Amino acid sequence: MYAIGLDYGTNSCRSLIVNLETGIELGSTVFNYPSGELGILTDPADPNVARQNPQDYLDGLEAIITGAIQQAQSSNPDFDPTAVVGIGVDTTGSTPIPVDEAGTPLGLLPEFQHNLDAMVWLWKDHTGHAEAAEITALAEKMRPEFLAKCGGTYSSEWWWSKILRLKRNDPEIFEAAFSFVEHCDYLPAVLAGDTNPRTLKRGICAAGHKAMFCDEWGGLPDKEFLRALDPALADLRDRLYEKAWPASEKAGGLCKEWADKLGLPEGTAIAVGAFDAHMGAVGCGVKEGTLTKILGTSTCDITVAPDTRDLADIPGVCGIVDGSVLPGHFGIEAGQSAVGDIFLWFVHNLVPDSYGATADEKFISMEKELAALKPGETGLLALDWNNGNRTILVDVRLSGMLLGQTLHTKAHEIYRALIEATAFGALTIIKRIEEYGVEIVEVVNTGGLAVKNETLMQIYADIIGRPLKVAASDQTCALGAALFGATASGKISLSDAQSKVCKVRDRVYTPDAANQSVYADLYTLYRELHDAFGTPGWSGQVNNVMKDLIALRERQRKS
Amino acid sequence: MYAIGLDYGTNSCRSLIVNLETGIELGSTVFNYPSGELGILTDPADPNVARQNPQDYLDGLEAIITGAIQQAQSSNPDFDPTAVVGIGVDTTGSTPIPVDEAGTPLGLLPEFQHNLDAMVWLWKDHTGHAEAAEITALAEKMRPEFLAKCGGTYSSEWWWSKILRLKRNDPEIFEAAFSFVEHCDYLPAVLAGDTNPRTLKRGICAAGHKAMFCDEWGGLPDKEFLRALDPALADLRDRLYEKAWPASEKAGGLCKEWADKLGLPEGTAIAVGAFDAHMGAVGCGVKEGTLTKILGTSTCDITVAPDTRDLADIPGVCGIVDGSVLPGHFGIEAGQSAVGDIFLWFVHNLVPDSYGATADEKFISMEKELAALKPGETGLLALDWNNGNRTILVDVRLSGMLLGQTLHTKAHEIYRALIEATAFGALTIIKRIEEYGVEIVEVVNTGGLAVKNETLMQIYADIIGRPLKVAASDQTCALGAALFGATASGKISLSDAQSKVCKVRDRVYTPDAANQSVYADLYTLYRELHDAFGTPGWSGQVNNVMKDLIALRERQRKS
Repeated sequence: MYAIGLDYGTNSCRSLIVNLETGIELGSTVFNYPSGELGILTDPADPNVARQNPQDYLDGLEAIITGAIQQAQSSNPDFDPTAVVGIGVDTTGSTPIPVDEAGTPLGLLPEFQHNLDAMVWLWKDHTGHAEAAEITALAEKMRPEFLAKCGGTYSSEWWWSKILRLKRNDPEIFEAAFSFVEHCDYLPAVLAGDTNPRTLKRGICAAGHKAMFCDEWGGLPDKEFLRALDPALADLRDRLYEKAWPASEKAGGLCKEWADKLGLPEGTAIAVGAFDAHMGAVGCGVKEGTLTKILGTSTCDITVAPDTRDLADIPGVCGIVDGSVLPGHFGIEAGQSAVGDIFLWFVHNLVPDSYGATADEKFISMEKELAALKPGETGLLALDWNNGNRTILVDVRLSGMLLGQTLHTKAHEIYRALIEATAFGALTIIKRIEEYGVEIVEVVNTGGLAVKNETLMQIYADIIGRPLKVAASDQTCALGAALFGATASGKISLSDAQSKVCKVRDRVYTPDAANQSVYADLYTLYRELHDAFGTPGWSGQVNNVMKDLIALRERQRKS
Repeated sequence: MYAIGLDYGTNSCRSLIVNLETGIELGSTVFNYPSGELGILTDPADPNVARQNPQDYLDGLEAIITGAIQQAQSSNPDFDPTAVVGIGVDTTGSTPIPVDEAGTPLGLLPEFQHNLDAMVWLWKDHTGHAEAAEITALAEKMRPEFLAKCGGTYSSEWWWSKILRLKRNDPEIFEAAFSFVEHCDYLPAVLAGDTNPRTLKRGICAAGHKAMFCDEWGGLPDKEFLRALDPALADLRDRLYEKAWPASEKAGGLCKEWADKLGLPEGTAIAVGAFDAHMGAVGCGVKEGTLTKILGTSTCDITVAPDTRDLADIPGVCGIVDGSVLPGHFGIEAGQSAVGDIFLWFVHNLVPDSYGATADEKFISMEKELAALKPGETGLLALDWNNGNRTILVDVRLSGMLLGQTLHTKAHEIYRALIEATAFGALTIIKRIEEYGVEIVEVVNTGGLAVKNETLMQIYADIIGRPLKVAASDQTCALGAALFGATASGKISLSDAQSKVCKVRDRVYTPDAANQSVYADLYTLYRELHDAFGTPGWSGQVNNVMKDLIALRERQRKS
């Protein structure tokens, strides 16, 4: 028995075929989105714009499934595509797609091909920040329960902010959109051959986290609330959905058209879609006490707590949804708006060629140099907010910050400070979750940074103060998606499948006590800046920060 | 009649021969200090260390004088070296040299050649910051009048901090030093052939600003005060000096040895030495209402006020000394610890080669790109404290800071933010001086940045809000030194010489009203950060800063 998982990321999509008995991965193919800059359509006049071309998704869909099957066949002559029991899909999100009545993305229609607003609104599009603030303010007044479930602040990265922004900013495209579909719901519908927005199965993961869907209050936000935002949203509600499904459910069977294209049996189970991090958490073996962390361009941090307990809402933690990760558990989702993205920004824009000719060479030689430094030795402290702060402050109108530079500061020292800043951000999330009674005893990581950057992982362990493990699979999101595909077939349970295929690597990163203690001091300074610049109403002193950093630098250089 | 001016900078020294009737510059030669990194001896373990090799000064002395004479002769066959009436010298400071009883710098002696502490302690050496704090604290208690004259805080860049640091940190070298001589006093003594530290003529400029010398309290700080710091300093006082001289005085006549080396008449007047900025101010034509600004690796801002008025001490402005610049005037000295140094640090460490292969190419292409931006459009704000803050806060234990970076921030945008930060720092100084009743109606600039970087100059004009002029001479410090050389000969008065040779260029930078108004908003944010991070005891809010910058960025990008 095999399953196929499809993982749609920010810049590319990839597939994985996994043997459900052994966990052996037989084939995997990556497809880089050809449009825009690394797959992202941007607007030079507004750094908040991040859109995608839906055609990239469809071109990728065929390429990565057929690619993986060919690989599986060539590496393993016994592999039989008819033994594929299911396909699961994860994507970024909230990444809504405006669609017409047939469910066709507007961006595929010739008349809208050149309009960025008709394209897919990628998760990291922040154009709806004013609308997010408006939704937050209205919910505070009218429906505080909506906010409590999403960390106290509705984000510009989410469904309603983007749709409302579209309505306000480009009413013509909004009018042309019969409905909106999350990227993770669209692809299973394509494979199942029915993209009708009225009937396609929407996932609870996207709905519950980003569209404020909750059975407690009757599904999506009520019309009265939506009307107060904009009457057009209240009308739109009738053209959205009444029910949302867990990813362990079947969205449909593979349709003939795609079965023929892919060489897979018609009717193969297609699981309901979910977000990458949630499926990735399952692929990492998430369980109580374990936080899984996808260390990518941004991070997504997921843990679970039994849904039998009374879990208070956690301020600043955006998504607590029953069944969104594992059956019988609240899924708790947090994350950082930019991690790898900050390093990529830095290497592409601010690292001279003396470190190497390519970004990869620069990273490698900077890593070598920064590994020789002790904590605090750079004298630098950064805030990890170049793309805003998703969890805790839930505020996109924040920015990066670097402090402590002298006339001798080198690029690799700043790179170290940026790594540390993202680790401090990660620790802030763990501390907040624990304050509300959910203990985190270990972190299982996945993503390119976790696998490739040992120095980063040790710094993270020293700062986070817990053992850090790395998932064995390089493709935990796609692996999780495959597990859901398998589960949707009804032929294996999720926990069974998880126990057979989810493994961690031998190398565990254990905190170094001496470094931990220096980092505790640095974290105090990080929190000072975090609160001073990020917390509305904060008042106090920061004039110790530069001096404390200099004193720590001197102490560490001498030690 | 001709005079020769010698200008000893941070990385090189240069000479100028000027015709005292016409102001025509006949010859000029530069000598780059061969030791260390761009002439600076550093210690990888401590970024505060900045020393120089005294041999570089002597090698340079011969090279630049003979070079300038050769040039003058080849460009002008009528030039006759015997028509040179005087030589003036300016240097950086406070740059003390430990010397033996004969006045030979310890760094020239074979036994100390490899000891950094025996070398020249360059102005920007900050190793004495703890000692500076100690001197400040003691003076507050015992001799508040000392502090009032130097801006309220004694700096680690100054004479006593460095000497006390040497005593504490390397007592053996301190013991080996019979006395200490400022760089600007040492070179005239060399040319005059008598380096005896007991008798060589010390300049009032260095003494008054940096060594707390004042006739009001009997010269150097009294022994009781020095003993409270360290008994060895009280003993040292007897081996220093009782009198200090203005630079319009003659330090001596050119000695035979150097007359022969240089091909100049024995006995040619050698003026008492002074700091580069003070002589540069004279070379720029400083007068009441005019601030002269040397825009170099750091800046030195000088203006004058009549010494007949009752000029209060100005908090945070380090040097108000009667006669230190023009006869009959208080010289008022302020400055920024790093300006060009910040740009050089940035271009050498953080600008990718996509901007160009060399630092010069990078600067040129960044300048082109940033010139197309409107104020506020980068969304960035920086503090200009990579080398501490010399005036207003008088605190070396501060650091650089950059705020507002996104995932799209480019190097040329940061360069613009750094330029703006240094201009905000410059404006802060002008505002402080004006608060104490000394009006500044125009700024006359000199230095490489003023001549070469038109974009920077316009940004400065828009931020400073006053017309900015550029001195005609490329060598205003050397020119000022030459004017003092001439004056020391007794053959021409300083004001006569100034009126004949000091000119400004045709291009005047006038503030643009629209830009000025945006910069007024940005300056408010700069002051918030300046006070929050730099002012002891400050308490308040800064959580508006990132949001205000983002709002301003959006407004400016759309405008």
